[in-house]
Amino acid sequence: MAPQLEPFFKQVDQLSDSFIDRLRKAVAIPSISAQDENRKDVFRMAQFLTSELEALGAEVEQRPLGKQPGKEHLDLPPVVLARYGNDKNKRTILVYGHYDVQPALKEDGWASEPFELTIDSEGRMFGRGSTDDKGPVLGWINVIEAHKKAGVEFPVNLLCCFEGMEEYGSEGLEEFIKSESKAFFKDTDAVCISDNYWLGTEKPCLTYGLRGCNYYSVSVSGPAQDLHSGVFGGSAHEPMTDIVTVLSKLVDPQGNILIPGLMDLVEPLSEEEKSLYSGISYTMDNLHESLGSKTSIHPSKERTLMARWRYPSLSIHGIEGAFSAPGAKTVIPAKVIGKFSIRTVPNMQSEDVNKLVFDHIKSEFAKLNSKNTLDVCLQHDGKWWVASPRHWNFTAASKAVKQVFGVEPDMTREGGSIPITLTFEEATGKNVLLLPMGSSTDGAHSINEKLDKRNYLEGIKLLGAYLHYVAEEPAEA
Amino acid sequence: MAPQLEPFFKQVDQLSDSFIDRLRKAVAIPSISAQDENRKDVFRMAQFLTSELEALGAEVEQRPLGKQPGKEHLDLPPVVLARYGNDKNKRTILVYGHYDVQPALKEDGWASEPFELTIDSEGRMFGRGSTDDKGPVLGWINVIEAHKKAGVEFPVNLLCCFEGMEEYGSEGLEEFIKSESKAFFKDTDAVCISDNYWLGTEKPCLTYGLRGCNYYSVSVSGPAQDLHSGVFGGSAHEPMTDIVTVLSKLVDPQGNILIPGLMDLVEPLSEEEKSLYSGISYTMDNLHESLGSKTSIHPSKERTLMARWRYPSLSIHGIEGAFSAPGAKTVIPAKVIGKFSIRTVPNMQSEDVNKLVFDHIKSEFAKLNSKNTLDVCLQHDGKWWVASPRHWNFTAASKAVKQVFGVEPDMTREGGSIPITLTFEEATGKNVLLLPMGSSTDGAHSINEKLDKRNYLEGIKLLGAYLHYVAEEPAEA
Repeated sequence: MAPQLEPFFKQVDQLSDSFIDRLRKAVAIPSISAQDENRKDVFRMAQFLTSELEALGAEVEQRPLGKQPGKEHLDLPPVVLARYGNDKNKRTILVYGHYDVQPALKEDGWASEPFELTIDSEGRMFGRGSTDDKGPVLGWINVIEAHKKAGVEFPVNLLCCFEGMEEYGSEGLEEFIKSESKAFFKDTDAVCISDNYWLGTEKPCLTYGLRGCNYYSVSVSGPAQDLHSGVFGGSAHEPMTDIVTVLSKLVDPQGNILIPGLMDLVEPLSEEEKSLYSGISYTMDNLHESLGSKTSIHPSKERTLMARWRYPSLSIHGIEGAFSAPGAKTVIPAKVIGKFSIRTVPNMQSEDVNKLVFDHIKSEFAKLNSKNTLDVCLQHDGKWWVASPRHWNFTAASKAVKQVFGVEPDMTREGGSIPITLTFEEATGKNVLLLPMGSSTDGAHSINEKLDKRNYLEGIKLLGAYLHYVAEEPAEA
Repeated sequence: MAPQLEPFFKQVDQLSDSFIDRLRKAVAIPSISAQDENRKDVFRMAQFLTSELEALGAEVEQRPLGKQPGKEHLDLPPVVLARYGNDKNKRTILVYGHYDVQPALKEDGWASEPFELTIDSEGRMFGRGSTDDKGPVLGWINVIEAHKKAGVEFPVNLLCCFEGMEEYGSEGLEEFIKSESKAFFKDTDAVCISDNYWLGTEKPCLTYGLRGCNYYSVSVSGPAQDLHSGVFGGSAHEPMTDIVTVLSKLVDPQGNILIPGLMDLVEPLSEEEKSLYSGISYTMDNLHESLGSKTSIHPSKERTLMARWRYPSLSIHGIEGAFSAPGAKTVIPAKVIGKFSIRTVPNMQSEDVNKLVFDHIKSEFAKLNSKNTLDVCLQHDGKWWVASPRHWNFTAASKAVKQVFGVEPDMTREGGSIPITLTFEEATGKNVLLLPMGSSTDGAHSINEKLDKRNYLEGIKLLGAYLHYVAEEPAEA
C-alpha cells in the first residue's frame, strides 16, 4: 500500500457515520429536475454542495446557465464548479457528477419514504439519489475531508463539475463545457466520471466504452387521408403493408443487421480484445434476470457482452400514424412512420451509416413496386466513445480497485450512451474514465433506489486511492 | 308506365315543397345517438316519425330496447315499428332505416348550420342526416302520403323498422329482429334497405352484396418489461423484429394475400359475373378522387371493382404496445400486438379462414427461430352477404329505376359491411335489396352532409314505383 493511503483509509472508517449523515442530508433535499415545483430544491442542493465544499477550503462558484428552454419562467440550476488545490507540480483531475435526481413518490411502491435515507439490516441505504448520483458526488467531498482530518497531503489538484439537470437532458451543459475548455477546465490532465454502475453486485469495474446511437424515421404515405378498409381494401397500395415489409429487411430475428456493408464498418475483434471478455464477472443468469425471460440470442456470456458493447444493434421501436390503441379499428392509415435506431460502435461514422441505411431502404422499397411515397431521415445521432483502458488514468484506477477491493476490476463497456463523456473528452482532449461506485442492483431510476454501505464507504476509499495512484502513474503508461 | 304511377308521380311533384319541409323539420332535431346529452332528441325524433306515420293512418308502436349497455343511466332509443296495410292478397314489404345521426358542430367546418336544412342554388340540401338516413326514412312516409292524396291504392302491405342507434353500433337491434322474426316481421315477403349510396353521382344502383370481415390480433412477447435498446440491443430477441417479419408475410404490396390456400376459398369468377363489371358507371378517376392520390393497384375499373367487391383483401391496421408517438424513444417494446383484418367474400367460411390464418402465422413464426412467444386470435368476424340480383325484389327495383331515371341501374356490391342486412336475411329468410337514395358525394359522416333535391324527390318516386313493381313481379322471376 502507498504509505499515505493507510491513514486516509483509517480516517474514512472513523468518519463513516458522518459521511452517511452527509448522504442523509443530501437525500432529504428532493432536487428533482423534471418537476417545476422542485426547482427551488435543486437550487438548495447546489447551495448544500457549495457550503460543504467551501467549509473544506475549496474555491467554489455557482455558474448560471440561464433560463430553461421552453420553460422560460424557470432558471436552469447552476453548475457547481470547485477547485481544490492549485499546485503546478501536481496533476489536475476533473471529476463530474450530478446533484439532481429522478422523481419519486412513496405511492409509486417505495417501501420507505424516498427522501429519507433508510438503512436496513443488510446495510442497504434506500433513498432517491443515494446511488444516482449523490453518493458518488459526496464521495469526492468525503475524500477531501478525510485527507484534511488525517493530515494527508492531497495528491492532485481536483476540479469538480457538478450539474443539476442530468435527469432532464443536461440542458445547457454541453455548450458550457465547451466554453470552459480553455478556461476553468484548461489544466485538466484526466477526467473521471462516477455516474454508472458495476456490471454485477460483487466486482468493481472500470468502463472504457459506450455505444453511439443513430435514430431514424422512415415514412410511407399514399392516400390523402385515412381510408376505410372495407371500401378501399384491395384497390390501393397500403402504406402499412409497405412499411412492415421495409422494416422486416433491416434486422433478422437473431439480431443480424441486414443492411449491406454496415458490418464492414465495425472494427474487427482482435485476439487481445477477445481475451478481455471471458474474465468478466457476468453470467447468462444475470442477463435472464434483467430480461425477466430467457429470450437471449447468444449462448455464451462472452458473445452476449460483445453484442451489447462492441457490435452494433438495430432495434425497431414502433410505428407512428397507424392504429395503436387496444381494440379493433378497420382503418387503412394514410401515412405511417417507422422508427428504428442503430447502436453504433468503432469505427462507424455517422455519415457512412446514414448512407448505407438510406440506400438500403430506398432499394428495398423500390423492389416493392408500390406507388406510395417513401422518405427516410436521421432524427438524431450521438457518437460512440471508447477510451484506451491502458492509459495511466485507467491503470491508476485499476490499482486503486486492487488496493481497496482486493481484485482486478472488470474492464467494461456499456451499450447505452452517456453523451457528456464524449463532450468532456472532446473539450479537454484528455482521457476520460468511468469509475462507478454503485452496483447493478441499485435501481437508479426505479422505486427503492439504494446504495450499499459497502459501496459508499469502500467507494470513498476507491476515489481517494485513485487520486493517489493517478498522481504517481507515469505518463507514458 | 304502370297506370297507377302517373298520378303518384304527379302528386310527388305537387307535394315537393311539403316533402322538403318535412325533411327540414327532421334535420332540425339533433338526434345524435353517440352523445348522451342528445338522447332526448333521439327520442323526440322517434316521436316525430310516430306522429307523421299515425297521421297517415299507419299502426305505429315504439318498442323499447332497455338500458344502454355500459351506460345504464340511458334508455336505448325505441325501434319505431309501423304497419301500413294488412291485405292478405298483397305482398308485404319490410323497409329499414335509421333516424339517428352522426355528431356535427358548425365549428368542425360546416359552411351552414348543420341542424338547419340549407338549400343552395344547385339544389343541394345541406344538413346533418339529410342523406344518412332521414331523407330515405321520410321517403317511405312521403310515398304513403302521395298515394293517399292522389287516391292511388297502396300496392303492398308496408312494414317499417326504423332504429335510433345505427350510428352507435345498432345496440340491441340484432336480438330484437331475431325475436320479432316470427312476430312483427312474420309476413315479410321481401326486405328493402335504403341506407347506402350510388357508386357515383349520376346513375342509380341496386346493391346485392357486401364483404364480410375477420379481424385478427397477433401478439409477440418476450422480456418481462420494456427494455432500453442501448443496454439490451443485440442480446435479446426483440418482439418488434418478429412482428414486422410475420406481418410482412401476410400480404404483398400489390394486395396479393400470401396465406396459402386462402384464395382457393374464393368463388371463381364466372363469365356471367365478369360481364357485369364493364357496364358499371365508374372510372379510375373516380377512384383517384376518393383516394386523393393515384396510388391505385389495378389499371382498370373492372379489376378495381372486383378487388373491392368480390375478392378478399387484407389490411394491416397497426401495432399496439410499440412506440407510436411523434419523436424518438429508444425502447425495445416487451409485448406488441399486430392488428389486421381480412375482408371476406363467397364462399369463405370464417372457421376455414381462421385455420389458414393461424397455421400460416404459426409456421412463419416458427421459421424465425425466435425465443419469443407468439399468439394469434380472431377479435371478431362478420359474414359477407350476397343476394341474388335476379330475384323479383331486384327486378322490380330495376324496373322502378328505369321508369324514374330512364336508365338501367348499376348492379353493385360494397366492400364494407352493413351487418343488419345479413340479420334481416337470416331472420326473415327472404331476399334483401339495398336501394340507395343518395349519391357518392353526399358526405354521409363528414361536414357539409347533403342530399340533392333530385335524389330526394326522384328517390321518393323510385321507392313508390318499386312498391308497385314489387307488387306485380311474378314470384318465379
